[in-house]
Amino acid sequence: MSEKLGVGVLGATGAVGQKFIKLLEGHPWFEVREVAASERTAGKRYADAVSWKQTSPIPPSVRDLEVQPCTPNLRSRIFFSGLDASIAGEAEEDLAKSGKIVLSNSRNHRLDEDVPLIIPELNADHLDLIPVQRAKRNLKGGAIVTNSNCSTMFLAMALGPLHKEFTVERVFVVTMQAVSGAGYPGVPSLDILGNVIPYIGGEEEKMEVETRKILGSFNGKGIDFADFAVSAQCNRVAVEDGHTEAVSVKIRRRTTPDEIAELWRSFCSVPQALGLPSAPEHPIVVMDSQDRPQPRFDVNICHGMSTIIGRIRLCPVLDFKFVLLGHNTIRGAAGASILNAELLKARGFLQS
Amino acid sequence: MSEKLGVGVLGATGAVGQKFIKLLEGHPWFEVREVAASERTAGKRYADAVSWKQTSPIPPSVRDLEVQPCTPNLRSRIFFSGLDASIAGEAEEDLAKSGKIVLSNSRNHRLDEDVPLIIPELNADHLDLIPVQRAKRNLKGGAIVTNSNCSTMFLAMALGPLHKEFTVERVFVVTMQAVSGAGYPGVPSLDILGNVIPYIGGEEEKMEVETRKILGSFNGKGIDFADFAVSAQCNRVAVEDGHTEAVSVKIRRRTTPDEIAELWRSFCSVPQALGLPSAPEHPIVVMDSQDRPQPRFDVNICHGMSTIIGRIRLCPVLDFKFVLLGHNTIRGAAGASILNAELLKARGFLQS
Amino acid sequence: MSEKLGVGVLGATGAVGQKFIKLLEGHPWFEVREVAASERTAGKRYADAVSWKQTSPIPPSVRDLEVQPCTPNLRSRIFFSGLDASIAGEAEEDLAKSGKIVLSNSRNHRLDEDVPLIIPELNADHLDLIPVQRAKRNLKGGAIVTNSNCSTMFLAMALGPLHKEFTVERVFVVTMQAVSGAGYPGVPSLDILGNVIPYIGGEEEKMEVETRKILGSFNGKGIDFADFAVSAQCNRVAVEDGHTEAVSVKIRRRTTPDEIAELWRSFCSVPQALGLPSAPEHPIVVMDSQDRPQPRFDVNICHGMSTIIGRIRLCPVLDFKFVLLGHNTIRGAAGASILNAELLKARGFLQS
Amino acid sequence: MSEKLGVGVLGATGAVGQKFIKLLEGHPWFEVREVAASERTAGKRYADAVSWKQTSPIPPSVRDLEVQPCTPNLRSRIFFSGLDASIAGEAEEDLAKSGKIVLSNSRNHRLDEDVPLIIPELNADHLDLIPVQRAKRNLKGGAIVTNSNCSTMFLAMALGPLHKEFTVERVFVVTMQAVSGAGYPGVPSLDILGNVIPYIGGEEEKMEVETRKILGSFNGKGIDFADFAVSAQCNRVAVEDGHTEAVSVKIRRRTTPDEIAELWRSFCSVPQALGLPSAPEHPIVVMDSQDRPQPRFDVNICHGMSTIIGRIRLCPVLDFKFVLLGHNTIRGAAGASILNAELLKARGFLQS
Repeated sequence: MSEKLGVGVLGATGAVGQKFIKLLEGHPWFEVREVAASERTAGKRYADAVSWKQTSPIPPSVRDLEVQPCTPNLRSRIFFSGLDASIAGEAEEDLAKSGKIVLSNSRNHRLDEDVPLIIPELNADHLDLIPVQRAKRNLKGGAIVTNSNCSTMFLAMALGPLHKEFTVERVFVVTMQAVSGAGYPGVPSLDILGNVIPYIGGEEEKMEVETRKILGSFNGKGIDFADFAVSAQCNRVAVEDGHTEAVSVKIRRRTTPDEIAELWRSFCSVPQALGLPSAPEHPIVVMDSQDRPQPRFDVNICHGMSTIIGRIRLCPVLDFKFVLLGHNTIRGAAGASILNAELLKARGFLQS
Repeated sequence: MSEKLGVGVLGATGAVGQKFIKLLEGHPWFEVREVAASERTAGKRYADAVSWKQTSPIPPSVRDLEVQPCTPNLRSRIFFSGLDASIAGEAEEDLAKSGKIVLSNSRNHRLDEDVPLIIPELNADHLDLIPVQRAKRNLKGGAIVTNSNCSTMFLAMALGPLHKEFTVERVFVVTMQAVSGAGYPGVPSLDILGNVIPYIGGEEEKMEVETRKILGSFNGKGIDFADFAVSAQCNRVAVEDGHTEAVSVKIRRRTTPDEIAELWRSFCSVPQALGLPSAPEHPIVVMDSQDRPQPRFDVNICHGMSTIIGRIRLCPVLDFKFVLLGHNTIRGAAGASILNAELLKARGFLQS
Repeated sequence: MSEKLGVGVLGATGAVGQKFIKLLEGHPWFEVREVAASERTAGKRYADAVSWKQTSPIPPSVRDLEVQPCTPNLRSRIFFSGLDASIAGEAEEDLAKSGKIVLSNSRNHRLDEDVPLIIPELNADHLDLIPVQRAKRNLKGGAIVTNSNCSTMFLAMALGPLHKEFTVERVFVVTMQAVSGAGYPGVPSLDILGNVIPYIGGEEEKMEVETRKILGSFNGKGIDFADFAVSAQCNRVAVEDGHTEAVSVKIRRRTTPDEIAELWRSFCSVPQALGLPSAPEHPIVVMDSQDRPQPRFDVNICHGMSTIIGRIRLCPVLDFKFVLLGHNTIRGAAGASILNAELLKARGFLQS
Repeated sequence: MSEKLGVGVLGATGAVGQKFIKLLEGHPWFEVREVAASERTAGKRYADAVSWKQTSPIPPSVRDLEVQPCTPNLRSRIFFSGLDASIAGEAEEDLAKSGKIVLSNSRNHRLDEDVPLIIPELNADHLDLIPVQRAKRNLKGGAIVTNSNCSTMFLAMALGPLHKEFTVERVFVVTMQAVSGAGYPGVPSLDILGNVIPYIGGEEEKMEVETRKILGSFNGKGIDFADFAVSAQCNRVAVEDGHTEAVSVKIRRRTTPDEIAELWRSFCSVPQALGLPSAPEHPIVVMDSQDRPQPRFDVNICHGMSTIIGRIRLCPVLDFKFVLLGHNTIRGAAGASILNAELLKARGFLQS
């Protein structure tokens, strides 16, 4: 058996679960040894239970795993959760109580006072909420660590360096989100071919709140949310992968588009310093061409782990406007959880 | 011969020109008797010169017209211009000088001090610029009257009643624009399938300036632009017809989403009062469903002549946000010019 | 109350059911007075039960109808059935037994020996199966009359005149079918954006068999299927409405593409002779342009009730090849049932 | 300077030219040292002349090359030609006359009696036409070697092993082709969104003839075309990359779908035996799932160099039907030329 840490995937047959399995194939630290899903598929061989929608085949080491039910009886210590929000809340909590560390993609616990909502480049220190969480919930070795909503991820990544350097005061964001963000089967083709759906349930609220928690500061007991207003409008468009966002910001300190571009280009942080395996070389990539980034051409830059920014310019209403793009199912979901797990390991939280 | 006014169409083989011909079929006041286009097609029968891209056939009365070159020798008095901006400037001016009235879709003269930029529901009184224009340019009976850029049209229509009632102070708008807005052949399929293009040349500037001219006031000699800031971000999406816009506004007077909705619903103006043939019964349609309007389902409401608004709600950064939709090639282009011509006729400007 | 015949719609909240309600709005003979759907929605107001996906609003006369369960207790005598095949078989049979006339879109009874599978232009005489059916099933006034699978409809329409005139011997057909053919939610967008799905469950078998029943002949007791082989390959493509089919045929008598085109152009039959309200003026429309028909531009010709054919040319393997197009949810589904009902009425089958 | 063979790319700024440059990046044998294009761009730096549409950046070694005009003055000995057919004929011939070896993607010379139309897995021996060509055209060291039309490539690949083993007698094929096959800007988005275009100029003729040349046999002086009829119908669909083809074949010897599947699965040929760098491990990949292959998910199997086949089953009209898929701009264009060049090198044709 390899020296790697065995991990489990919750919701393993779903869209996010599949992406976990794909991204963890050949991972230097982790190895998927357990897959769990709904009662309906429990007991089946993974390859028989899943409607595999990735472009590469099911990793051979996972094909024959027997799908387990999502109960605390699971054997792994570390779990990546792609569970649907309708069941994630309780299931993840039960696992944490039985000593498991759960890396969750679901919205259920993100805003819990004692649950860290982590983007390693921005708030690695929020992991200090783990002892708070363990004390409060009486967890023995278990923990829930969350990553943000997919659209929030890229917005927060762009705002993080700005906020640190210039203090963000107001943010406008309009998203044009890919259909893969809605999972599978997700958005019916009749709803999106030749169409824009100007509404994604709960998404605007998530962006308006999660961003402020991520960019908030740990005060020893909890997180003081960042003190700026975010206004989000979220739209679904006929794109397979990649959320595009049109952003406008007001900041306190005066600066220029060039200075902001340079700040983003040179941005490097904890995951890069620690050499985490999934850390993108450039967390933020700035493109110069006036009509980029575009999801179809740019979404896979740095293996889908970067936030791509372009069109930085003055805004007649706030201070600056720009366009950003990120891969919603990689950096915006499964890849984010994996990077969080790598941070946990590097920081010693995964030792038993 | 009918009692109708004969009109000519400039750029008759292009996308906007075709739409003029389609919309004018069976028009109660106007009849297309002359079609003009580039030298390359001049002399051909219209049906042979055009690559007809409308869903109904070429009107029989137009099929056999001989395509004319765009020169002042054209016979009609009234012209609808779908000319490309690269040639519209001079061609339209030459026609005006020779006594023609040109209803122009092109950007070239929209911001000329003496050229009215008209949306009949909002600024019918700006037609009073015509005598100014004639005096200044020494025109004998000729005139250039413009309608706005397509994206601007719907934004201005939404803002008009708001501005009159509550005074608009700031506007933030992000568009998701249909490919038909780029004409034909326009956007290559390889650029837009599964993609968003976050840039449309010159579009943001048009929205930021034209809106303020339209909602400005005539001071006897020219237009005092409306005094509010607009910030626009324009995107192309894989939609055939219909521009969707996510808007946020700050207004001076306090109000509520319900009051705004009611204001829009009950909005009626000059074209409705005059019973202009192309006037939509409801210039603004407000939809209640939380995920509407959507271009694929709603773009043809009121024959594509209305502005459709939904999701009116509070904005954490400015005051209110909402989504709007309009048919870019009908109300946003050819239909707008036709409505302007109807207004001109009703106001007596078309008498010779 | 109007003089119209009251009718019911089964599966009224589904995609086909909605299309029935839309197409029957303002119908000169029929009026929807009853809507039935699954137990889950029974008891609700129609407007509350349905997720309406048509581009025009729910007809006012239907909005407030209470959704009924699909049982023989329904009051109408005539039913249009858009029921899912999983339940249509028994439900339609029960209704027929209780004296109802069911116009069915479902595959369940199409191949029953005693059930007519009708395309009024091709086999109106197959209605003579109704007395056979009533005798065999001991029905008192009730009956089941079916229309074909959507892809089969257009193929049969093209083959019908050919078979009568020249005797069809072999048929090869490859379809490119719209997503609306799969109902709602139907095809997930992740499966079809930028994709072709080369498989539609059961569709090829339907085309290969139903075509031969439709073009068969009534022998006094049943239908002798037409004696030619059909080979079908069915694909789903990213088109909203309109099935395109590439067809090649071998026929017995020698002829030319021009003669075939003329045969199709001049084809008129029972529904046109009877002046049925939904009968297209031209059951078959032949287009000359070498790149037509195309679903996006041509699917609504003759209100979606025609079969559009183009590119008639010699085939190096069989005799002729051509392309055809039809509106799958109008002539290929709801419109077909309505035309069948009109035929029934004209032939006196709807008198009580 | 590296030990690699320097090569030039003709039509280097076009869609196929870009693909050559991308696929040749890091090639073990060849290195792009010269780029040629139209007069309009000649003299510019490549990065400035090109509108680069690949998902990875321009290779650094090519960025700064100066674009040359397409004349015999070019320095390289080996050229990959992505020239448009409107100029390829003469330009390629001129280069051959001046001693260059031209690997051509263009249709112009494919059917010349003395020009090999090569698919290395199927007819490597057709390279023996080169001496015939040199003699006939009085070429000193130069030669034109062509690869097939993109749609033909995959059909020929599927038919090759069948023909050798069972003797193909008749072939039906209907294609659903990606927009990238039309180059850039290529298909306007207004023509293909939500649409099928049932016509691609010249494509059907190419498939019907080229297939028979490729599978023909060299008789010492020329090629005896394979003696079977092909009937092709070609359609454009809204897919970015990957041509899907529905095929039906009649063969002389009796066999079963399983036997055919096994024949294809085990097919290996010259490029695999020679270990050519671009040779796919499996020239033909057979998929078992009933709804595959699909372009969006399967087009990149074996780096886009394989032909993917599925749904092998009996055909009621001919003998067998199946679906195939191939990457039109890789194996169907640039990758095919590169594999041909590798074969030429392995066979000693590139020694000076």
